[in-house]
Amino acid sequence: MKISIERGALLKAVAQAQSVVERRNTIPILANVLIEAEGEGVQFRATDLDIEVVDKAPAMIERPGATTVSATTLHEIVRKLPDGALVTLTADAAAGRLTVDAGRSNFSLATLPREDFPVMASSEYQSNFTANAAVLRRLFDKSKFAISTEETRYYLNGVYMHVADGDGGKVLRCVATDGHRLARIDADLPAGATDMPGVIVPRKTVGELRKLLDDDEMDIAVSVSETKVRFATPDITLTSKVIDGTFPDYTRVIPQGNTRRLEVDASEFAKAVDRVATVSSERSRAVKLQLDEDKLVLSVNAPDSGAAEEELAVAYGDERLEIGFNAKYLLEIASQVDRENAVFLFNSSGDPTLMREGNDQSAVYVVMPMRV
Amino acid sequence: MKISIERGALLKAVAQAQSVVERRNTIPILANVLIEAEGEGVQFRATDLDIEVVDKAPAMIERPGATTVSATTLHEIVRKLPDGALVTLTADAAAGRLTVDAGRSNFSLATLPREDFPVMASSEYQSNFTANAAVLRRLFDKSKFAISTEETRYYLNGVYMHVADGDGGKVLRCVATDGHRLARIDADLPAGATDMPGVIVPRKTVGELRKLLDDDEMDIAVSVSETKVRFATPDITLTSKVIDGTFPDYTRVIPQGNTRRLEVDASEFAKAVDRVATVSSERSRAVKLQLDEDKLVLSVNAPDSGAAEEELAVAYGDERLEIGFNAKYLLEIASQVDRENAVFLFNSSGDPTLMREGNDQSAVYVVMPMRV
Repeated sequence: MKISIERGALLKAVAQAQSVVERRNTIPILANVLIEAEGEGVQFRATDLDIEVVDKAPAMIERPGATTVSATTLHEIVRKLPDGALVTLTADAAAGRLTVDAGRSNFSLATLPREDFPVMASSEYQSNFTANAAVLRRLFDKSKFAISTEETRYYLNGVYMHVADGDGGKVLRCVATDGHRLARIDADLPAGATDMPGVIVPRKTVGELRKLLDDDEMDIAVSVSETKVRFATPDITLTSKVIDGTFPDYTRVIPQGNTRRLEVDASEFAKAVDRVATVSSERSRAVKLQLDEDKLVLSVNAPDSGAAEEELAVAYGDERLEIGFNAKYLLEIASQVDRENAVFLFNSSGDPTLMREGNDQSAVYVVMPMRV
Repeated sequence: MKISIERGALLKAVAQAQSVVERRNTIPILANVLIEAEGEGVQFRATDLDIEVVDKAPAMIERPGATTVSATTLHEIVRKLPDGALVTLTADAAAGRLTVDAGRSNFSLATLPREDFPVMASSEYQSNFTANAAVLRRLFDKSKFAISTEETRYYLNGVYMHVADGDGGKVLRCVATDGHRLARIDADLPAGATDMPGVIVPRKTVGELRKLLDDDEMDIAVSVSETKVRFATPDITLTSKVIDGTFPDYTRVIPQGNTRRLEVDASEFAKAVDRVATVSSERSRAVKLQLDEDKLVLSVNAPDSGAAEEELAVAYGDERLEIGFNAKYLLEIASQVDRENAVFLFNSSGDPTLMREGNDQSAVYVVMPMRV
């Protein structure tokens, strides 16, 4: 194999590869990126056995071939090369080396045979549709904070993407929860997605997917089967196993009868929660909300270190209520609000609370209270 | 005590205090900042028993007094208050609380009695002089990278500031070394500094001092005794114990007879060293320099992962030489060069190498070679 490729294009491809590769793994070849120069372009492929990413880059192919080389080392080298450099990659299979030449720099890297590289088996996808990058970004960005990190509840370690019944018909819905809080985000159902099986997209895949979604105008080809999900731009294909488990019936967790309505400036609210939480050094800081006619008092009481209180002018017309929440959960939920106001709907101090942006039903959050 | 102070001024004073305070310490009051509102201003004092910083801030004193409160918590609170807020601090000695009021936020923090706060004993200073902030910044910034981190060689855990004989007479000199590399930086001797005893300024003090030196025009009042050093601006006074030890005779380490002269673009050199070092994952990466008529070849050979080589056009007229260095040391030294060219003076591949900026003798670096 011998190819020449512009440094910028190479960096982009290798950056994506090295981020999928696991830092520590017992199978040496999983640290490598598979470079395939065959046919009309060069492909860079990396995998951790659960996720596979393939990045196409324009290159001049002088001699077709393929090899695998450490993704981290190649990324570090390319990152340090001067912008605009032309990089030549030459594989010497007999010597087990890949040389990287750019200007007066040259590197010789240990390779492993391409035959040993585990390529993810191709799948039959039941559902293939196209979704706009900005739409997917909203679905995952607004839900991923609620993904559980508890490994024993593996079926909560991802975002549940599925087709659901919304108020105005079928919607594409992402839900995540860790049992303490829940996010449910809806988008218009893309054409062709009606038969999509519901899948739990793992946390790491959600993170890798994010890198494909920066361009608002980009169309993303989405393919879904019972066991795999694939997201593709013209240049990058991200394939991932989905979590083999059943996502719990979240609909029962979303309160329907909460009537006590608080409307508050989301940014002011978040700042105030952040401030009052300062006095407590515990990991699960409880913030107390005292609601009265158009008045909200936030307070924290940490017997050892001190107390804090802050008053906010809000819209609230129901009877007096005291309710406590984990400060971190409140902050995260408040920071999901893009518009000015957050609307909280309470029932009692022991019941789950619902939060949404104004009257918009397409992004709904639930948070469990804690005793204060 | 009751005082009102503008949030910006309070943040500046408390930020300085909380950075001196040790995160983990067994004496609770050492986590606190002493706030003293007496006479004509408010002083914020923090100490770790080795360093003491006192920051004056303008404030309205309604009721004089003093108290101590957690520096970290107060800093966090003030940081999160809106810019421009007026903050009122009220100490209630009977309740052991300090209340912090700003707008609709109020906080009540646990205090410890001021009597328990360890104030550093005042000293007689043998030498008092004034130095420009930019001059001190250069002396310490260019030497501190060479400070040793080996705790057993405690006398190398700082910068040795002393009066020395330079080419054109007495100079104010800072030296640091860890036995592998050495930095020797000179500045004109300030008036009144002639009798200054040589002192080893500890690493942490060098870091705290740096925050006083941002303003090029600022005059810093320096006071030195055998056991302490003090740096003061009109607002901030930093007092520190010096390291109780003898700095080794560094003059013997600085080679005098090195004649093989290499002149190289410092930035290009540093980038090339960084690139070739990429292929080695070891902590002490050895870079080999091969010198030939106006040509420098840098190379690294890591049997496991690969090899790298880069050629640079340089000015070199002496006989062929091969010499190896720790890549990290070479990088750090090259990045001290402000001007375009670094001048290296070699003897043999086993002897210490000298580096300076052009022909400037006021900043000299020594680095030990390693076998490659």
